[in-house]
Amino acid sequence: MKIGIYGYGNLGRGVEAAMKYHTDCELVAVFTRRDPAAVKTAGTPVYSAESILDFKDKIDVLILCGGSATDLPRMTHTLAEHFNVIDSYDTHATIPAHFARVDEAAAKSGHIAMISGGWDPGLFSIARLYASSVLPEGKDYTFWGRGVSQGHSDAIRRIEGVLDARQYTVPVPEALDAVRSGSMPELTTRQKHTRECYVVAEEGADLARIESEIKNMPNYFADYDTTVNFITLDELRANHSALPHGGSVIRSGKTGLSGEHNHTVEFSLALDSNPEFTSSVLVACARAIDRMYRRGMTGCKTIFDIAPADLSPLSPEELRAHML
Amino acid sequence: MKIGIYGYGNLGRGVEAAMKYHTDCELVAVFTRRDPAAVKTAGTPVYSAESILDFKDKIDVLILCGGSATDLPRMTHTLAEHFNVIDSYDTHATIPAHFARVDEAAAKSGHIAMISGGWDPGLFSIARLYASSVLPEGKDYTFWGRGVSQGHSDAIRRIEGVLDARQYTVPVPEALDAVRSGSMPELTTRQKHTRECYVVAEEGADLARIESEIKNMPNYFADYDTTVNFITLDELRANHSALPHGGSVIRSGKTGLSGEHNHTVEFSLALDSNPEFTSSVLVACARAIDRMYRRGMTGCKTIFDIAPADLSPLSPEELRAHML
Repeated sequence: MKIGIYGYGNLGRGVEAAMKYHTDCELVAVFTRRDPAAVKTAGTPVYSAESILDFKDKIDVLILCGGSATDLPRMTHTLAEHFNVIDSYDTHATIPAHFARVDEAAAKSGHIAMISGGWDPGLFSIARLYASSVLPEGKDYTFWGRGVSQGHSDAIRRIEGVLDARQYTVPVPEALDAVRSGSMPELTTRQKHTRECYVVAEEGADLARIESEIKNMPNYFADYDTTVNFITLDELRANHSALPHGGSVIRSGKTGLSGEHNHTVEFSLALDSNPEFTSSVLVACARAIDRMYRRGMTGCKTIFDIAPADLSPLSPEELRAHML
Repeated sequence: MKIGIYGYGNLGRGVEAAMKYHTDCELVAVFTRRDPAAVKTAGTPVYSAESILDFKDKIDVLILCGGSATDLPRMTHTLAEHFNVIDSYDTHATIPAHFARVDEAAAKSGHIAMISGGWDPGLFSIARLYASSVLPEGKDYTFWGRGVSQGHSDAIRRIEGVLDARQYTVPVPEALDAVRSGSMPELTTRQKHTRECYVVAEEGADLARIESEIKNMPNYFADYDTTVNFITLDELRANHSALPHGGSVIRSGKTGLSGEHNHTVEFSLALDSNPEFTSSVLVACARAIDRMYRRGMTGCKTIFDIAPADLSPLSPEELRAHML
């Protein structure tokens, strides 16, 4: 299977690194909207995004490594006119609109597209779907972290006097324990997660004002117990340069003629590198949509539409013999 | 969707109870090889297994609730000649032979069949498949328990002087911790699980001999640290009549250009009632194979072949809007 990477940030680098492990894939090219000469890959040839149509017959699946805020809403449906594509669109509220746009383009051009690959949306969505299908009467909980939230880190960086920042989302251990016990607690936003901020301020900046602006920022921090730690740039680089993440999807549900039995289903991730894990999911999904395309399927899909067997390089016979 | 239950033990009772929650299903009949008058259901009409062919046009999916040792190897392919069927065949080593037998019968009769639904094989298999497809370089671990193993309980009951017994499989906490840490330890059978036995002996039986026979039983107990507790029949009934189970599938894997990042993926179940949870999985899978049959699919399938969306009563639009 011939793969192209469109966009070369953390996610694109992750897809390139994943090729070492997904040995049935061949990485053909990285496409960038920057000057190709300025993009240093781990060895993959780099081309200008403008030359992408020259590769129409050389790529089976194009993995789109742009951001959900501004890149993917313009990128995915446009490229689905010419390629089989996959993205990691993660703005939950606007997934239906994104799906409709991409489905129309892919169906018209006779290509297949998959949106919202990764782990949330992605593997976490799958965990929610399996658990709720098996246990219709129950309650779902999603906890994120401990991990770096790029969106919250960016929000802190936009505050006047802040040079750099890193924000960790941390699940509250007592809330996790209560959910795992099957007691199905009602939990507020504040009871589920805390937020830890590591902030590098400009020399002479008003630290009290920065801390107050962070803690009172609506949507991002105001509804959480937030701690703010001011550190040096050297400390940030030494101790907070990784991008770990993870979390848990937990469903508690009931069975029995009078609901007398409780069950807890949990899916958890502990990730050293959020972008590399997300990339690895995208590569497995690319394998699946390439197979589905060869069977004649077109239009937009999500991970809900992919039969698990199609994600694996193993044959159905091998899967039944060794993994069932 | 019209459901029939074939075989009315713990699993069949579980399917009947699951109908309370899976409200898009209608339970038409229970079929038994015993005298129907002697089978007390929670309200479902009971018919002799001999009359099953009278129901050919009245049932969309027949859920086979027999055992893997002797029932299902004769039952599933025979009934697949006349019905869409699903079973929970769980003898891992002979799944390929069972699959081949059922596939031939179902393909020939134009029906769809699914084998090995439940949680292991079943949801645990799915967890192994997703995790290994995303992280090809890594190591899988499966822990079972704390839970009742019916096979091990039966093995104890066959010892001379034993009236009744209940065996719990218990994961070793230190082994679980080591695996969750991502250290990818090599673990022996003995290091992963212990076995706890609660045994009711006949009056005057030689307890030392019974204990020794249990602890030295090949395959079942000899490779484990086993504890044997002699209790009264009243204690067994009061404290050990439930059928809890569960466990964890954990994969640790690497990503990065030089394998520098570790990731841990875990899927865990804590079940008050093993048969009721297994039944609930079977009902969700029955929904999926009914849909697949209506699309023209025939032959034998496993949970690997089922797109997750087909398990849910929700529409694809609802799933994308609320669960992705």
